[in-house]
Amino acid sequence: MSLDIETYLEEKRQTVDRYLEAHLPPVGTSPAVLHEAIRYSLLAGGKRLRPILTIAAAESIGSPPRAVLPVACAFEFIHTYSLIHDDLPAMDNDDFRRGKPTNHKVYGDGVAILAGDGLHTMAFEWCSRADLVNDIEPYVQVQIIQELALGAGNHGMVGGQVLDIQAENQRVALEELRTIHAHKTGKLIRAAVRAGALLSGADLRQFDQLTAYAEDVGLAFQIADDVLNVTGTREELGKDANTDAERGKQTYPGFYGLEGARKLAQDRADHAISCLKGFDEKADSLRGMAQYIVSRKR
Amino acid sequence: MSLDIETYLEEKRQTVDRYLEAHLPPVGTSPAVLHEAIRYSLLAGGKRLRPILTIAAAESIGSPPRAVLPVACAFEFIHTYSLIHDDLPAMDNDDFRRGKPTNHKVYGDGVAILAGDGLHTMAFEWCSRADLVNDIEPYVQVQIIQELALGAGNHGMVGGQVLDIQAENQRVALEELRTIHAHKTGKLIRAAVRAGALLSGADLRQFDQLTAYAEDVGLAFQIADDVLNVTGTREELGKDANTDAERGKQTYPGFYGLEGARKLAQDRADHAISCLKGFDEKADSLRGMAQYIVSRKR
Repeated sequence: MSLDIETYLEEKRQTVDRYLEAHLPPVGTSPAVLHEAIRYSLLAGGKRLRPILTIAAAESIGSPPRAVLPVACAFEFIHTYSLIHDDLPAMDNDDFRRGKPTNHKVYGDGVAILAGDGLHTMAFEWCSRADLVNDIEPYVQVQIIQELALGAGNHGMVGGQVLDIQAENQRVALEELRTIHAHKTGKLIRAAVRAGALLSGADLRQFDQLTAYAEDVGLAFQIADDVLNVTGTREELGKDANTDAERGKQTYPGFYGLEGARKLAQDRADHAISCLKGFDEKADSLRGMAQYIVSRKR
Repeated sequence: MSLDIETYLEEKRQTVDRYLEAHLPPVGTSPAVLHEAIRYSLLAGGKRLRPILTIAAAESIGSPPRAVLPVACAFEFIHTYSLIHDDLPAMDNDDFRRGKPTNHKVYGDGVAILAGDGLHTMAFEWCSRADLVNDIEPYVQVQIIQELALGAGNHGMVGGQVLDIQAENQRVALEELRTIHAHKTGKLIRAAVRAGALLSGADLRQFDQLTAYAEDVGLAFQIADDVLNVTGTREELGKDANTDAERGKQTYPGFYGLEGARKLAQDRADHAISCLKGFDEKADSLRGMAQYIVSRKR
């Protein structure tokens, strides 16, 4: 595999960030504080893993159609809105995120709730805007919007968040932990990959392979996240470290120990890569991302 | 006009409620507390004005296509999510809504935020689901999703909410009050009507007429709401009365006096009806709703 994944990720991160800068409402757009709060969290230096998965999945089938960037950004909007709401005092009550004070710490809880709500709607707005998405079949566009909604909603991310707050300070079985993560993190990652596949006109077999890849990557990502929460420093993570233990959250290292969890994450990454059998070198970015996700430091 | 609007509204309210009951995830669907919290606010006896506007707008052009109900419900989902978030302690801190304790009073702030988020996503999910919306052209479906997003988002409802919380305890000019309401309430009502027009294949002239109707109705609705906040009792309103004055909110009665505001609302309703020139008796439900909106008691 000749692709340097760190270079690839950096290039695509810049592509996503440039597209955001070019298409977000300009600074000062009314209501100014809303757009400022949205930009504050959105442009705080996220890794852009979800949008890059959309791009890489589209690339793995063929050359990406132009519409891939607004759709990719939509997944980042959903992810960022969920972080803003998750950090609220009524939820996880976190003070730091991506190395900066959390949204509500800067703008207050009311504006933070609305900034999250605004980002949430923007995800669907960008996927449906004729000026941004105009070179794909409308029925594909509707399928992508449905993927986004199912990944984000009650049977996806929002449902996982509810299960997660219910599980705090409770003993949950391993099976339940898997369910929480499959929903909270897994479904949106899966949707991001499937949206990329839809954008590139994947056939049914490719679509299933990419779905299987995404499910493994989502699980690997979450296990690695749990490991980082234990081993990372606040500087590396950009947020408070070791918060899971303090909150009594069940984690993969809690069940398997640190080394066991690391191995489990690597197994999932290996399995994700094996799902891409038959894909040529255009899928190397997906292969590299699976490995990156378990070896990253933040 | 032979149509009895109260009977019409009651019939359509029941149609909407039956459709909701038949298509919401069944009670007990995991996570149970999330779906329970969503049902709690959604099935709390709302007037269903937004979905009925979608239905009536579709009817005004021709017989409604089947897909009108999921789309109509999507507008109720957006409206209900906004009420749940608006009632939170971080926003208006209201204890009663539709005659019952507010969502966060029953389920706590964390679940209430997530119930709102879940409803928000559901709006887009229902509009994009192939099993619910399957007899309209996909490009029309995308247009409807865009209307929903623009009505709900930063340049619509969410933007209006931000302007509204910023204006509390400030002296705002009448022009600014108009802007707040046009966004907070007006844009979603406008989108609900336009979605109905799109569903029925309105031509451009009809679409513009219905848009103008909706803008007048939205303004009439908000003025009437301000009047009711002064004159209504908690029993009539299902929520605390006279809260605007307590919070130092600028209102139409504040600018025009009660009688002046009532007259202004009636003028807007009359103007809304005049926008429907050339529409036959199939638009009588829209005409009746314009009048109902300014004469209602809750």
